[in-house]
Amino acid sequence: MRIVRTIHELRDALQSVRTGGSIGAARVGMVPTMGALHEGHLSLVRTARAENDCVVMSIFVNPTQFGEAADLAAYPRQEAQDVELAESAGVDLVFAPSVAEMYPTGFATAVHVSGPLTEVLEGAGRGSAHFDGVATIVSKLLLAVLPDNAYFGQKDAQQLRVVQRMTQDLGIPTRIRSCPTLRDEDGLALSSRNALLSDTERASASRIPSALTAVTAALAAGDISVSRLRAVAEEVLVGGNLDVEYVEIVDPDTFESVKFVERPALCAIAARVGTVRLIDNTLLVPQR
Amino acid sequence: MRIVRTIHELRDALQSVRTGGSIGAARVGMVPTMGALHEGHLSLVRTARAENDCVVMSIFVNPTQFGEAADLAAYPRQEAQDVELAESAGVDLVFAPSVAEMYPTGFATAVHVSGPLTEVLEGAGRGSAHFDGVATIVSKLLLAVLPDNAYFGQKDAQQLRVVQRMTQDLGIPTRIRSCPTLRDEDGLALSSRNALLSDTERASASRIPSALTAVTAALAAGDISVSRLRAVAEEVLVGGNLDVEYVEIVDPDTFESVKFVERPALCAIAARVGTVRLIDNTLLVPQR
Repeated sequence: MRIVRTIHELRDALQSVRTGGSIGAARVGMVPTMGALHEGHLSLVRTARAENDCVVMSIFVNPTQFGEAADLAAYPRQEAQDVELAESAGVDLVFAPSVAEMYPTGFATAVHVSGPLTEVLEGAGRGSAHFDGVATIVSKLLLAVLPDNAYFGQKDAQQLRVVQRMTQDLGIPTRIRSCPTLRDEDGLALSSRNALLSDTERASASRIPSALTAVTAALAAGDISVSRLRAVAEEVLVGGNLDVEYVEIVDPDTFESVKFVERPALCAIAARVGTVRLIDNTLLVPQR
Repeated sequence: MRIVRTIHELRDALQSVRTGGSIGAARVGMVPTMGALHEGHLSLVRTARAENDCVVMSIFVNPTQFGEAADLAAYPRQEAQDVELAESAGVDLVFAPSVAEMYPTGFATAVHVSGPLTEVLEGAGRGSAHFDGVATIVSKLLLAVLPDNAYFGQKDAQQLRVVQRMTQDLGIPTRIRSCPTLRDEDGLALSSRNALLSDTERASASRIPSALTAVTAALAAGDISVSRLRAVAEEVLVGGNLDVEYVEIVDPDTFESVKFVERPALCAIAARVGTVRLIDNTLLVPQR
């Protein structure tokens, strides 16, 4: 496995991949990450490995998508360990650029997706600059690699949808693939931020997936009212040491609010446990 | 020469160009236009023709870069004639999409370049949405073709610089080439909008290049003061039936104001003649 630090080296390395094969072009799969790899990331790599000839992972903690300097500073960084994990999961090429490589002096361009998709939930909670930061860095990473496929986790459902919208709108020739959320035994969705939780905080955090399960069960029992389904979630969340930021049920494509779950809808939760902000979601699919 | 209307057809056509050659990849050159072709566009095609194996021209009157509905409605459209001119100049493939092809329902993404570059001159005169419209459509067109080289006229100097900034910042793998402004015998820069001028309006319009020539002469005579050089231009412009919008001398990279022409600087003029808005510019290069 090779590690490159600049877009120039990256393109050179990909050039030999693409022209090296004896017949036809090699398919390239990409897994963009902010490092601090866990099984969730590695499951994306394994899917990419199965569907492509070459797998590129980017590791870049993108400063422009962090609203709070403290959150950026606290974000776990462990490159040596990440590189080992990436290699063992089957990555061929790691792209780990510096901030100056991605945002050189004079950089002045942003990619902006407008509408509810970037304004509600994470867009409201983390500030309007968050998804501009995401859309800009993902477009840069995709354009640096020009992969056939790029793999994102359903855990960051809104980010995934913003990336899909941006990629489709600009016509970046990459297929965006959504992969299922991985969970620990207590139900908590795998996240790099989980490493920052104490044991008691972790017990509180596990109420988030429990709330999603309770909502799914209530829907299965026939309740399609969003106000009542949200109350079901809130009842589970209350009592844990959680500072709940939102419990929302929205259209999974546009992120517009819905009143009744008559079509598939996304139930999304954000909450703070101590200083750690966690998000999770599940797709609600009504019966019949 | 082939004409395609959709990104899908365009990519199919380019795929066969790129894989059709017996040795190595064919170099693709692109000339983005809004149609109403004149010799200025055709000179871009000839440069592209000399430097590439395949020349693609896009013809698309981009609604999002027009501030005024009347300006958009009046913009000359003559596709049949454009297609003939393109073919005679050596274009291999014309991409002439509909508005719905470029901005389908649900489209929500914009590319924004910030700073003086998009805020002054044309950014101030045509509104802040103008360069967002330019940056967004040019990124879409470049991503649809992924050309090795794309050709723009120096006549739209600020647009050229916005496109260079955006392409560099996002890492679109295309070299942006700047080509000199072509002029008629009376000095007027070739522009699709010239077709809208009456004979008397045209006489007034020709004061714009005369003003640029006067500024160049004053600089050559040793005057490097921007306020005095602007006064030289204004003296030429006054008296014609011109509504002058700006006469500015700026840094050619950042478009920040300068006070003295001690390094190369761009002198740019915008003026209305009747209902027609014209722009022109020249690079001022101090002696020594």
